Amino acid sequence: MNVLPDRFLRDLLTLRSFGASGVGKGVVRPAFSEPDVAARKWLIQQFEATGLTPHVDPAGNVFGLTDAPSMLLGSHTDTQPEGGWLDGALGVIVALEIARAAKEAGGPPVSVVNFQDEEGRFGALTGSSIYSGKTTLAEADEFTDMNGLSFRDARSSIADLAGVCVPHKQFSGFIELHIEQGSTLHDAGEAIGVVTGIVGSRQLQITLTGQQNHAGTTLMYQRKDAFQALSAFNTALNDRLRNIVTPRTVWTIGRIQLRPNAPSIVPGEVVFDVQWRDVDDDRLARMESLVRDLVAEIAGDHGMQAEIVPIKALQPVPMDANLRAALSAAAEAQAPGKWREMPSGALHDASNMARLMPSAMLFVPSIDGISHDFAEDTHEADLRTGLRVLADAVSRLN
Amino acid sequence: MNVLPDRFLRDLLTLRSFGASGVGKGVVRPAFSEPDVAARKWLIQQFEATGLTPHVDPAGNVFGLTDAPSMLLGSHTDTQPEGGWLDGALGVIVALEIARAAKEAGGPPVSVVNFQDEEGRFGALTGSSIYSGKTTLAEADEFTDMNGLSFRDARSSIADLAGVCVPHKQFSGFIELHIEQGSTLHDAGEAIGVVTGIVGSRQLQITLTGQQNHAGTTLMYQRKDAFQALSAFNTALNDRLRNIVTPRTVWTIGRIQLRPNAPSIVPGEVVFDVQWRDVDDDRLARMESLVRDLVAEIAGDHGMQAEIVPIKALQPVPMDANLRAALSAAAEAQAPGKWREMPSGALHDASNMARLMPSAMLFVPSIDGISHDFAEDTHEADLRTGLRVLADAVSRLN
Repeated sequence: MNVLPDRFLRDLLTLRSFGASGVGKGVVRPAFSEPDVAARKWLIQQFEATGLTPHVDPAGNVFGLTDAPSMLLGSHTDTQPEGGWLDGALGVIVALEIARAAKEAGGPPVSVVNFQDEEGRFGALTGSSIYSGKTTLAEADEFTDMNGLSFRDARSSIADLAGVCVPHKQFSGFIELHIEQGSTLHDAGEAIGVVTGIVGSRQLQITLTGQQNHAGTTLMYQRKDAFQALSAFNTALNDRLRNIVTPRTVWTIGRIQLRPNAPSIVPGEVVFDVQWRDVDDDRLARMESLVRDLVAEIAGDHGMQAEIVPIKALQPVPMDANLRAALSAAAEAQAPGKWREMPSGALHDASNMARLMPSAMLFVPSIDGISHDFAEDTHEADLRTGLRVLADAVSRLN
Repeated sequence: MNVLPDRFLRDLLTLRSFGASGVGKGVVRPAFSEPDVAARKWLIQQFEATGLTPHVDPAGNVFGLTDAPSMLLGSHTDTQPEGGWLDGALGVIVALEIARAAKEAGGPPVSVVNFQDEEGRFGALTGSSIYSGKTTLAEADEFTDMNGLSFRDARSSIADLAGVCVPHKQFSGFIELHIEQGSTLHDAGEAIGVVTGIVGSRQLQITLTGQQNHAGTTLMYQRKDAFQALSAFNTALNDRLRNIVTPRTVWTIGRIQLRPNAPSIVPGEVVFDVQWRDVDDDRLARMESLVRDLVAEIAGDHGMQAEIVPIKALQPVPMDANLRAALSAAAEAQAPGKWREMPSGALHDASNMARLMPSAMLFVPSIDGISHDFAEDTHEADLRTGLRVLADAVSRLN
């Protein structure tokens, strides 16, 4: 097949016009917003022009299907409230161009998918979660956005387009091209990342309760200061994790609620989240043991009551070995010495699709590692390389 | 003079009925609320019954005046939104009983004051700030409470009672009895604290700005995590202050705002307040230098931009030596071996009065150090001792 980079770039720019923010290349196209629905209808027209059969499923996922069983390529075109123009959109338009080029070349058969609500306006990876059976449509219907709009009401806006679910067995595998959203490739001056696996993550919400007191009359030795306990926990956590982690393991304390959160009151309580991610589930478990032990130890040292609530535990998802081999071979052919194997630190629809079929992912660089921001971008040369590598890999798989 | 403890305790209980919360002995009597105004009108009746001349000034401070120049005793009867029954009320009713007993004994002349809005519904120590000239009435009129009610509108509710300001020179000195609000006396099993001075305080609001990022795709070495910078600052601050502070120096990080404060995002910014208090202004200044140097150092180490905004700087207020000597002699006479000299870690109206005239303070214990809470209380024996010590001191001063 012969992909046409200029045609691909033209489509990518056209898609950007749906919800263009007017700030740089930024896009505001949350799931089921007016520009999101318009973009999906435009995509359906492109499928029709390409000779793919458009199909919308009850979750709002938009497919462009071949008649025969096929490889499935795609990602999502919905964005964050302040999103970048590439993010998942890139993977959908790359898929469109490869499916079109394959049609023109008389094969191999390539279908396209544009999942709905990957960015989590209602849930998280909602469209692919429903497609994979991880979440039922009935469960998703109860999800609401920040303003209380339900997924049920949102999807009713395209009920006239929606048909049944697409049988999984129609597809031999799934490949998703996506921007990296980190700066590993950018920093290394590389063009392609072949994803080894999608990291798992665990998150605990921890409450430390000490004693709220007057910040003028309570002497230091009398205090049970919840912030001091948190600070001591954080310092010890960083120290102890060093013996367990790899350079790609990450952990974050990103949310903190101090009570009563007043400058003249010794804080009596803190609620905070500790989250960590790694490709190795055993390491995730060892980190959880360490966190739990440390919470107990710090609570004892600082006279605190401690409560730990598990918020999430997502297992790492390894990518399919055969698909990875094809992607690596294509990367070496199209960008020799300018690619690497790497895990994905972010969640993607591919982590749901891996439940159903062989799945894999390809990354292109994010300039300065920026994503989920109007400033998100990728050099045009890297976009072209991404297209060539994925097309090459699809050819190798047939 | 011959103070009557039972009459004093009866009045104290009567005052408690104005705004009684129904929770323990708690009181809800914020400045200019209906129960606050009712309590002040009740106090005016007590002054009249005692032969003191009631006088309300434009700020809402209520005086009970002798004809001749006199010592002034008092505190405030307004409370926190969830206040204790003693707090400032105790100092007002003690003053009433001593002025009454002095009247009955034919001297010495003792006047009484009940300051308004000590608890800061509108400002902070608003009534005594206006009386001392620290704040003008015009400035205070612009203060608003949490619901947007202005001090101007609030004080208009008692405009029919208000007269002119009382000349400062009418008073030879001011003594305020108050609950300790800390647990030093309670822990030591002592009955009386003679206050050496009211601590000064300084507060800086510090903003550290790093780089907000995806908590999955941003490796640890790439991060500019504002919470990590805060935690490092706190650890180093505790370590370095050890060489400067005394056992009664206190410092607090009580307010923290993390941005964007989400579990899956590396926090890009933190705004927090550091506040410290001591009786020695030089020490306050040395602590400020240390804090400022450390902010710059941590910002450098963690790749942060730093901004420091001074929020407040209150100088320590030493108590008058002659008044202290009388209070100490009276404490030793009435509670031999069961009293101490100590600084006040909290602000009080006496810190404003010290600008105008010799001023001093006396503490009675707070059970378990609890204050600004419905659970605030003091053993009745300690209330009686406080009354006796202050009456004795007033007698010694004449």
